[in-house]
Parts: sequence; structure tokens; C-alpha cells
Amino acid sequence: MTTKSFNPPVRTLMGPGPSDVHPRVLAAMARPTIGHLDPAFVEMMDEVKAMLQYAFQTRNELTMPVSAPGSAGMETCFVNLVEPGDKVVVCVNGVFGGRMKENVVRVGGVPVIVENAWGDPVDPDRLEDTLGKHRDAKLVAFVHAETSTGVRSDAKTLVEIAHRHDCLAIVDAVTSLGGIPLKVDEWNIDAIYSGSQKCLSCTPGLSPVSFNERAIEKIRHRKSPVPSWFLDLTLVMGYWGGSSKRTYHHTAPVNALYGLHEALVMLQEEGLENAWNRHQHTHLALRAGIESLGLRFLVREESRLPHLNAITVPDGVDEAQIRQILLSDYDIEIGAGLGALAGRIFRIGLMGQTCRMKNVSLLVSALKETIERLRGTAGRTGAELASRRA
Amino acid sequence: MTTKSFNPPVRTLMGPGPSDVHPRVLAAMARPTIGHLDPAFVEMMDEVKAMLQYAFQTRNELTMPVSAPGSAGMETCFVNLVEPGDKVVVCVNGVFGGRMKENVVRVGGVPVIVENAWGDPVDPDRLEDTLGKHRDAKLVAFVHAETSTGVRSDAKTLVEIAHRHDCLAIVDAVTSLGGIPLKVDEWNIDAIYSGSQKCLSCTPGLSPVSFNERAIEKIRHRKSPVPSWFLDLTLVMGYWGGSSKRTYHHTAPVNALYGLHEALVMLQEEGLENAWNRHQHTHLALRAGIESLGLRFLVREESRLPHLNAITVPDGVDEAQIRQILLSDYDIEIGAGLGALAGRIFRIGLMGQTCRMKNVSLLVSALKETIERLRGTAGRTGAELASRRA
Repeated sequence: MTTKSFNPPVRTLMGPGPSDVHPRVLAAMARPTIGHLDPAFVEMMDEVKAMLQYAFQTRNELTMPVSAPGSAGMETCFVNLVEPGDKVVVCVNGVFGGRMKENVVRVGGVPVIVENAWGDPVDPDRLEDTLGKHRDAKLVAFVHAETSTGVRSDAKTLVEIAHRHDCLAIVDAVTSLGGIPLKVDEWNIDAIYSGSQKCLSCTPGLSPVSFNERAIEKIRHRKSPVPSWFLDLTLVMGYWGGSSKRTYHHTAPVNALYGLHEALVMLQEEGLENAWNRHQHTHLALRAGIESLGLRFLVREESRLPHLNAITVPDGVDEAQIRQILLSDYDIEIGAGLGALAGRIFRIGLMGQTCRMKNVSLLVSALKETIERLRGTAGRTGAELASRRA
Repeated sequence: MTTKSFNPPVRTLMGPGPSDVHPRVLAAMARPTIGHLDPAFVEMMDEVKAMLQYAFQTRNELTMPVSAPGSAGMETCFVNLVEPGDKVVVCVNGVFGGRMKENVVRVGGVPVIVENAWGDPVDPDRLEDTLGKHRDAKLVAFVHAETSTGVRSDAKTLVEIAHRHDCLAIVDAVTSLGGIPLKVDEWNIDAIYSGSQKCLSCTPGLSPVSFNERAIEKIRHRKSPVPSWFLDLTLVMGYWGGSSKRTYHHTAPVNALYGLHEALVMLQEEGLENAWNRHQHTHLALRAGIESLGLRFLVREESRLPHLNAITVPDGVDEAQIRQILLSDYDIEIGAGLGALAGRIFRIGLMGQTCRMKNVSLLVSALKETIERLRGTAGRTGAELASRRA
């Protein structure tokens, strides 16, 4: 067996994540590894915490990156906050709401589902109704930015409803953090998790989380131990906590954290609001381009995410072929539809470093050529293609 | 707030891990990120699997890196293999055996402990006795190379005993993989986990695991769902499995896997047996150096790990000060004692890329100077220092 070093192709990552990683972040990841208890490393951890507090817009002391991908951040919330028998109202409007439900089941909680159509935001009235019927519910969980459909739900309102019914709110912000307005303290979110590889444009593998005092209080009063040793926050905090004496819990992914640190430095340099504006502004250019090709969005404009665009597959072409040609001929990755939407939509991400006018321009042009090629209509205009479809 | 980019100091990592990471591995980590479902990435995953099979000396199809540090690899074994009520015999001779016990408790298993003194290997007779008394035990768990004490246990014999009593064997190989002989198939190990940051000399954050058919059979016949969604092997295998169609489970830590790939390429280039020999050979040089300073090993020679050396703190000096001077003045990291051994030993790692003659030479020299400085005896010989201690 003679395996050679791996040299990846150079892609433009316009799928649902990972997004393009800036050379500064890649360079940071290649800096010399030091120990996870080295004083220099501990100082860097403090900076990561402070910058994550800025990104989440929170003063929560318990704010840190979980040493594993977003799914583990999700699991961190559920294994710590849900005790066996706890009723949890889970709002489902796509794949990731469904995954939350699965997490509730795994830890012995009782999920109550608020169903919403895929492509719609979570309906606050339905949540209100459900909580009215389930007065013993302890928690509400929902996805802020549903990556499988490109929908934004009204996190502020949903959290308010949860609190009116004495429930804590767990929010999935995997795709929203750094891309659209998200204000953990102002909106009173109790527990939140995200991912490093979306709008933060770091490499995949880390999951920023934040918990407020109410959430910590619930964890403190658990009757049963947290079913995961690795994700037990009472232990993890001995390492990431505020005390100057850090206790070894697990070996932190040192170089991955260098990368996250640099990505967060870049977010600070740009400014959070500027980043939100860039995502919105670039989305408008993509929308114009998509519409000029006669293509349609899955999601109504008012609840569309600017940076995760679900586009209905045009008639007469195979979406797998579109993706394959874009990847092989243009080195552009876009995403497929998931679950019920597989084959019916493709997903265009404009997250973090990917969110640049030059990428919009490239994609619209490449997409036009690809669709024409698949339809055998090379040379026609977008309007002609649209009328052909109609 | 104006946080600057982080530039770590350049250390020589001679603690219990992470070990020194080769520039080739660091360079691999900085290559452009691609998607976790990109065909080029999936090909690289297959190579990682094959190279891990080589490192573990196994043909187990279910061999892959868990997307999180070694603690999560440990948890992967316990959440998948232990069902509520299962009796698990856990051999404890240091910190990491204790952590295994904690994992059993968290998933609702019933731990039965085989206690051994810290610094001793696991006693096969005691395991035999315990299994004789607990005929309903389903699993045996032990640590091959106990990182907290530097002891090697006889994995082959312990697995044989477990099997004679119809138990599956879970083996912690975090510190042994790539450093000392370890033969998963020949020794019939059922489930095993390791870490990327020890003798493989990759950055921390990944946990190679391997499961044989007997282990998979037990997982298939579970009555209750695996309590972790993130670590559920039946789901993870849809992504890492043999089928050409990979199903999205979670977003893999793409660049971290580039690093592991390169570290495994380097292990192949050297050859596994050559790596084992290098660790043994370099240890002998360290032993000579340590003895020339009049210092003593915690562990008897026959069960000493070559690459994790627990050294008794010499009289009249403070071990925290030794470590601090080595770090601040020489940029050398060594490890403290853990738990009951805190303050009584320090730990010198010679793992992976750290395991070089030049590092032994540097460390012995720096250690001599440091101890002399702390004792105010600069200039005396090692023999004089030893006699002073006696």
C-alpha cells in the first residue's frame, strides 16, 4: 500500500457549508501545535470566548466552542438540559428540527412536535396553541435558520412565547451566527448552538454554544447525571470556565481553535453588523441573477435567508446533473435538497467568505451555461429560457 | 475590543500529548477546505480508513476516526456497546480507567471495578477472579497504555480472559496506537479507540476507533436506542461506511482529516514496526539520561511504556517549578502528575515526532540544569546530586 499525500481540488464552496475558508484562517491552523494547558493557549481560549460572546451578542459566561461539529453542539444542549421524562416542544420545519426531536428521544425526553411545512417558518400561533395544550412542557426548541430549506424563523417571538409558558428556549443557530441578526441577550435565548463552518467561515469541526443563568440553573438541579461524560457542561466548564486554574477535561483540538480564533478576529475587524449587511446585500445580487435565469425561490421573500438560497429545480433538467457539472467543470460546489426536497431544489450558500459579489457573478454565469447545456439551448437568453419553461 | 491574530510560541512537546506535529501535517491542515461530500474528499476518507486499518492491524470494516477527541472515542464505545443494566467489568489502574467507569455509569450500565495500584499494570488474575464472581458480566474494559502513570498492561492476555468468560473487550489505545505493538485482529480486540495527538503525531481532535463483527452484532441487537445521536455508529456508518453512496450524518472536520491523512501517510512511509522500534530505542536513551541524573521511574521496568515516562519528583524540588522553568526558559512542555500522583511525579512523553534522540538529549540537559538551579547546586554532577538525595 502506497498512499500519497492528499492535495484537494480548489473549490468555490457555495453549498450549505462548509463555506470558503480564508487563507488567513488556513494559515492559522498550520501554526505550531502547543499543549492544551499551555498558558499561551489558555490566554487564546479566553480571547475565543470573548469574541464568541461578541458574535452571539451575549455576556453569558458559559460561552465556548464544543470540541466537535454542530451536531455535538446540538447534543450538548439536549443532554444537559433535558432530563428523562421532560416534555420538550420541538418546532419542525425541516431536517434539523427533526434532528432536534431525535435528540430529545435519545435522552429519554418526551417530544411534542409543532409541525410546519418545509419551506415555511415556524408558526408562532401553532407554538402558542401547543404550549397551551401541554402545560407541563419544560423546554421549547427550534431552528433559527433552517439549512435544509433556507427559511428564517422569528427567534425573538418564539422565545417570548416559550418564556410566557415557563419554558426554556433552545435555539439552533448553526446557519445564522454571523450571517443574520442574532441577539442572544436581547432576545433572552437560554441555550444556543452553532457551527464553525457556516457564516464564521472557519473549517468544520467546532460548535460554539452559549447558555444563560436560567439554563445553568436547570442543569444544576438535575436529578440524574448528564448521560454524556464528554459533553457534560459541569465538567467542560472546569476547562473553559472563568477560573484562572484550568482543569484538564479532554484534550482540546488545538489547531482547529487557532482557526476559529482567526475567523473571529476577522469578524471583529469587519464588524458584526457589516457582516450581516454584506450577507443581505450580496443576496440581492444573487436574487437578481437567479430571477434573470427565470428560476424561482422555494421560500417566500419575507422569510428567506439571504445566505442559504433554496432554488426550485427548473423543468427539464436533472438537479444532480446541474450539481455535477458545476463541480467538475467549474469547481463550484452547491448543495442538494435534503429529505422530502431531494431532487426538487438545490441550495446555494452565500455564507461567510463565500458571500462575495464575484462568487454571485461566477455562479449565475456558470448556472446559466449549465442549464442551457442540459436543455440543449446554449445561446438563448434567460428570458427565453423562462418563457420556454412557462 | 481589538484582538490580534494568535501566534503560538514554538514548543517542544514532551508531555502526555499533544506530541510534536510534523510540518508536513501542519501544511496538510492548511490546504483548501472542500465539501464533506465532495467525491475527492470521499476518496480521501477511504484512504484514511485503509491506513487506520494498517495502524490498528485489523481488517475491521468499521474502522474510522470519530470527529472529536479521544474522550469522544471512548464514549463511542460505551454508548454503542453498553445497554442500561449491562454489567461491565472495568479494570482501573489510573485516571483513564476511572473515566471508563464513569462512562459506564452515564449510560446506565453497572460497573464492577478491578482495582490495581496506580503504577501497576492490570493484574490478569484479579480480572479472572472478578469475572468468576460476576458471571452475568457482558463486557470488560481496560486501558492498554495508561497515560496517567506510564504503564503498559498485557492487552492480549486480558482480552483472552474476557472472551473465556463470554465478555466483549473494549480497549483504550489512546496512547499505544503507533507507539508500541498493538494487533487488533491477532489479539481479538472487539472495540478499540485511540487519539490523533499521541503517537500518530497529528493535531488533537480526532479519535480513531475500530469495531469487529462481534461488537457490531451486539449493537445490532440493542433493545434501546443508542443514547447519543452524534455517536450512534449505525448512523455514522452511513457516512463512513463501505457503500459508494455516502449519506450525510454530520459535517466532518475536513481539514483535521487532511492532517490525519498526512500523519498516516508518514506512518506508512516509516513502517509500523520501525515506529515501534524507534519508540523503544529512544526510550533507552532517555532512561540512561534519567538514571544519570539520579532520578527514578515510577513504573517497574517490565511494564514501563517506552514513550510515556513517569518520573518520581526528586527530593527538595517542587515539580510545578521544574515544569514551569522548562516551559518558560527552554520552551519544553512536560506533563504533571494527575489525581493521586499530582505533585509526586512528572511525565515525559516521547511520542510520535517528539520521539527523537535530539529531544532526549535536550531534555536531559535542560532537566539537569533546572534541578540544579532549584537546588542551588549548579555545576555538580548527576552522581553528586543523586548522593545528595540519598
